[in-house]
Amino acid sequence: MFSTLRINTVTGKAVKEQYDSREFLLGGRTLSSYLVSKEVPADCDPFGKSNKLFFCNGALAGTTVSSANRLSVGGKSPLTGGIKESNAGGIVGLRMAQHGLRCIILEDMPSRDSSWKIVVISKDKTELIDGSFLVGKGVYEKSELLNEKFGAKAGCITIGPAGENLLFASGLACSDPHGVCSRYAGRGGLGAVMGSKRIIAMVIMNDGEEKPQYTDQQAFRDASKKIINLLKENPVSSLFTKYGTAAMVDICQAVKVLPTRNFTSGTMVDAEKINAQTMYDTIKARGGAGLTQHACMNPCAIQCSNVYPNEKGELLCSPIEYETMALMGSNLCLKNLDTIAEMNRIANDAGVDTLDVGAAIGVALEAGVAEFGDDKAIIGLMNEVLDITPMGRILASGCKVAAQVFGVQHAPHVLGQALPAYEPRGTKGMAMTYLSSPMGGDHTFGFTLRDEEDPITKEGKVALSKKFQVIGSRMDAMGTCNFVRYSVRNDMSPLLNLIKAYYDVEISSTEFDDFVKDTLRREHQFNTDAGITAADHRLSETFYSTPQKDTLEKMDITDEEVAEAMRW
Amino acid sequence: MFSTLRINTVTGKAVKEQYDSREFLLGGRTLSSYLVSKEVPADCDPFGKSNKLFFCNGALAGTTVSSANRLSVGGKSPLTGGIKESNAGGIVGLRMAQHGLRCIILEDMPSRDSSWKIVVISKDKTELIDGSFLVGKGVYEKSELLNEKFGAKAGCITIGPAGENLLFASGLACSDPHGVCSRYAGRGGLGAVMGSKRIIAMVIMNDGEEKPQYTDQQAFRDASKKIINLLKENPVSSLFTKYGTAAMVDICQAVKVLPTRNFTSGTMVDAEKINAQTMYDTIKARGGAGLTQHACMNPCAIQCSNVYPNEKGELLCSPIEYETMALMGSNLCLKNLDTIAEMNRIANDAGVDTLDVGAAIGVALEAGVAEFGDDKAIIGLMNEVLDITPMGRILASGCKVAAQVFGVQHAPHVLGQALPAYEPRGTKGMAMTYLSSPMGGDHTFGFTLRDEEDPITKEGKVALSKKFQVIGSRMDAMGTCNFVRYSVRNDMSPLLNLIKAYYDVEISSTEFDDFVKDTLRREHQFNTDAGITAADHRLSETFYSTPQKDTLEKMDITDEEVAEAMRW
Repeated sequence: MFSTLRINTVTGKAVKEQYDSREFLLGGRTLSSYLVSKEVPADCDPFGKSNKLFFCNGALAGTTVSSANRLSVGGKSPLTGGIKESNAGGIVGLRMAQHGLRCIILEDMPSRDSSWKIVVISKDKTELIDGSFLVGKGVYEKSELLNEKFGAKAGCITIGPAGENLLFASGLACSDPHGVCSRYAGRGGLGAVMGSKRIIAMVIMNDGEEKPQYTDQQAFRDASKKIINLLKENPVSSLFTKYGTAAMVDICQAVKVLPTRNFTSGTMVDAEKINAQTMYDTIKARGGAGLTQHACMNPCAIQCSNVYPNEKGELLCSPIEYETMALMGSNLCLKNLDTIAEMNRIANDAGVDTLDVGAAIGVALEAGVAEFGDDKAIIGLMNEVLDITPMGRILASGCKVAAQVFGVQHAPHVLGQALPAYEPRGTKGMAMTYLSSPMGGDHTFGFTLRDEEDPITKEGKVALSKKFQVIGSRMDAMGTCNFVRYSVRNDMSPLLNLIKAYYDVEISSTEFDDFVKDTLRREHQFNTDAGITAADHRLSETFYSTPQKDTLEKMDITDEEVAEAMRW
Repeated sequence: MFSTLRINTVTGKAVKEQYDSREFLLGGRTLSSYLVSKEVPADCDPFGKSNKLFFCNGALAGTTVSSANRLSVGGKSPLTGGIKESNAGGIVGLRMAQHGLRCIILEDMPSRDSSWKIVVISKDKTELIDGSFLVGKGVYEKSELLNEKFGAKAGCITIGPAGENLLFASGLACSDPHGVCSRYAGRGGLGAVMGSKRIIAMVIMNDGEEKPQYTDQQAFRDASKKIINLLKENPVSSLFTKYGTAAMVDICQAVKVLPTRNFTSGTMVDAEKINAQTMYDTIKARGGAGLTQHACMNPCAIQCSNVYPNEKGELLCSPIEYETMALMGSNLCLKNLDTIAEMNRIANDAGVDTLDVGAAIGVALEAGVAEFGDDKAIIGLMNEVLDITPMGRILASGCKVAAQVFGVQHAPHVLGQALPAYEPRGTKGMAMTYLSSPMGGDHTFGFTLRDEEDPITKEGKVALSKKFQVIGSRMDAMGTCNFVRYSVRNDMSPLLNLIKAYYDVEISSTEFDDFVKDTLRREHQFNTDAGITAADHRLSETFYSTPQKDTLEKMDITDEEVAEAMRW
């Protein structure tokens, strides 16, 4: 049996429920999308009473398995108007496991003028307490205040000023192992959904005492070691260990898909100024708080995260990931890692997704709000987001709204969610994934780029995208870090053996993939019921009519191909 | 045969085409929606190359018939994402007739950095000339500059700074008989569509020499007189003659549907301060340029327009209509006609629809941007629209976008277009019309309020709305002013006799209504093809969950009822 804690945000009433289905066993996106489909009316207002937030850890949360404590958050997205699962590293998944929880549900909604509350979950009780001392503060200050009040080891989730103001690009900031809320479930505006429920933070106290009860401890231990060896042997995950995701800068520049100048080009002159080696060298040279390798959760054998220091060696931002380096770097023609780190820091403080705001700034620059490559002016725009000025509100509403308000045609998004850092006319596999994702522009679940022989052709890309939609979704499907997928890509049995040894439940690779596909079906159905149509599963018209400057390729994927890539 | 002038906005090439179908005979919305459906791909970007603008006059344009020179403008709307017909009074329809034109088409689209052009149509040629001298200027100044260059009697259509910036609430400002571009085809953002084509104005020179060739001049003259008598005898149109549409303030306050405080109430304390009598008395007392009765086009026997003077008797704004008095008055808790006139004047100068921007300001006030009823602060917000500040951009994007950016749930719109001035929980007939309109929130084509015995019940309102959707659409369907409908409500034969006497074409009342219904079918089909679904044909969730403060009624119309009201 798996425990769910259902919390009413109006009355504060909390009820524990027990469930025992495969969805609850697997947790992660399997569970969050199952529950969103089951409990949230597809056509509801994302900021209304009927929307809910589901916080789910995964099948192996709380165990000794590497990278297994991801937190999947589900709900209806204000950004896309469809279903959303957004996941994060950090320690919240682990704390939930230590309280014996698979899922926490926030439901109902107090009136907009109610006072802000914090949900506090401890061993003995769950309560809503006054959260007014956090209101209007940045996420870094909120983190410190939460640490002071609840201890640095509590698992906290909070929102920034953007989430308090219900802005679409607002994420949920989750505690890392050092007590800083810096691990973002950033995409889809779920921070604003928590804000709409007048919940400014959720805290899971570090007093949980549940420990995993393994059916076969020895088998579990052996299978767990096997995962670590696989991760260490695998060239992709070991590359991430040294360089983090920043390793993608050079790869994307070479393939001509590094988003540059509001997704008009696929290469940036001087891209090496912001690549992985430069970041690595800078961190090493500056020393101090800097770390080239850092774990967002424990245990983790990959440690792709980093800590980027300023010139004095003091912490500037942690982590900086490739997606941010591209969307807040090359996409804005910024060529200084310190600027990107500063942008990232302000975004984290404001509580917004770096991709959606980076893309929104790109659109604003195209409209002439400032010059591409003007570090100072662009940092000024980020500060407007933090200060929630009218300009900041526009930018924190994501690139679709920004494009509407600034009258820009070339808006890099699908379903309102900004494209990740792979220019789609240069990689039709990634484009197919973006276009057919139930989550809007997204790369984690159908990452084809490493496997495209000829990225600019669409031939064979429906099948390729679908193959990786399944491979990528497997990790989310059980709350495991996406980077483990490189090690189990052709053989899920190491992970399924862990489930067998833990729960004494046998799930074959085929059965597991059926769950993955069921989840995708469920998500697409939710979106259809929400009123999303084929017309939404398109890029803006400019991608089809204008060639990308480096590949000279236009978008040529048809509605029929997208529909095929969505059929499970 | 009816002439169409097709103008390419990239090459300047203009081609005259001849057509001879009933759609071209009737003109107006019949023709504009026919052409949009036929020539514009439903799923195109409204600001892309494939969208077009169709300017159509009506069957009786250029004749001696009262109120028959309306101009219908068609295209795909950036505001609603669907088909749009927006119509205006003024002299453009007449000038077109004098050039023998039923329709002018603007198509294609130059690049966004092309210079601004003016389309100039004269007897001998059509050309694109430099329009840079107009750029960035308000509509009043543009009007003067156009007058200087082309003469006060030219028929001009221009856009304001909002249209130049492609903002969704941008309208098309058309010349009135005094050479002021003050008659707005305001709804649906068609001004921004003209802006996207880099056309800053279109001018139809006053050198057209075509005169109507009546098949039976005497019969036409007799039937024309009949219309004038009907208008003079009719109590509704004669009420409009004295008070203009402002007469609705008292009616709506009595029925409790006067939109107040962002559509939360249906009555405003002190509503009499902004009612028709107060306006009438103020205009009379101030004298000077003030006029309580004024024609937007010639000939017109209704003359519902007015000229509102300031305290010195100088022109402040013309016209002020009920919809504006409500959306920019009671809806913002403003109780001073001078303030409303000032707001209206700035909106006209910025080139925006007063309804969409009024509703957007209502939403912004609910978010706390300023206080309801704060005249000075709210005029300041309107000036931000004129100055195209970030705040102004938000407000000129209409209330749906404003609600997104300001995190407000209660957003009074359908399909993104602001509701007109009848609070829908207080009048389920009007609500049915709003919800089932192919144009988004709209009242002109299904005005039930005068015929609802019990406005707060939805019983019978599908049929009532549909009845008036036909009655209201008849006028648009042939380019005749909507206020003529009161006189021919039960018998279209006076108007159809005019068509017979003019063209020797016999159209029965039944056949005519079939055209009206065909147009509605065509419009709904376009929207379906554009990706609009039942989920878009709803009010925001708050209307269903929260009672209106005066009637204590919630919205209770179902998707099925809306679908029935859309079935033709």
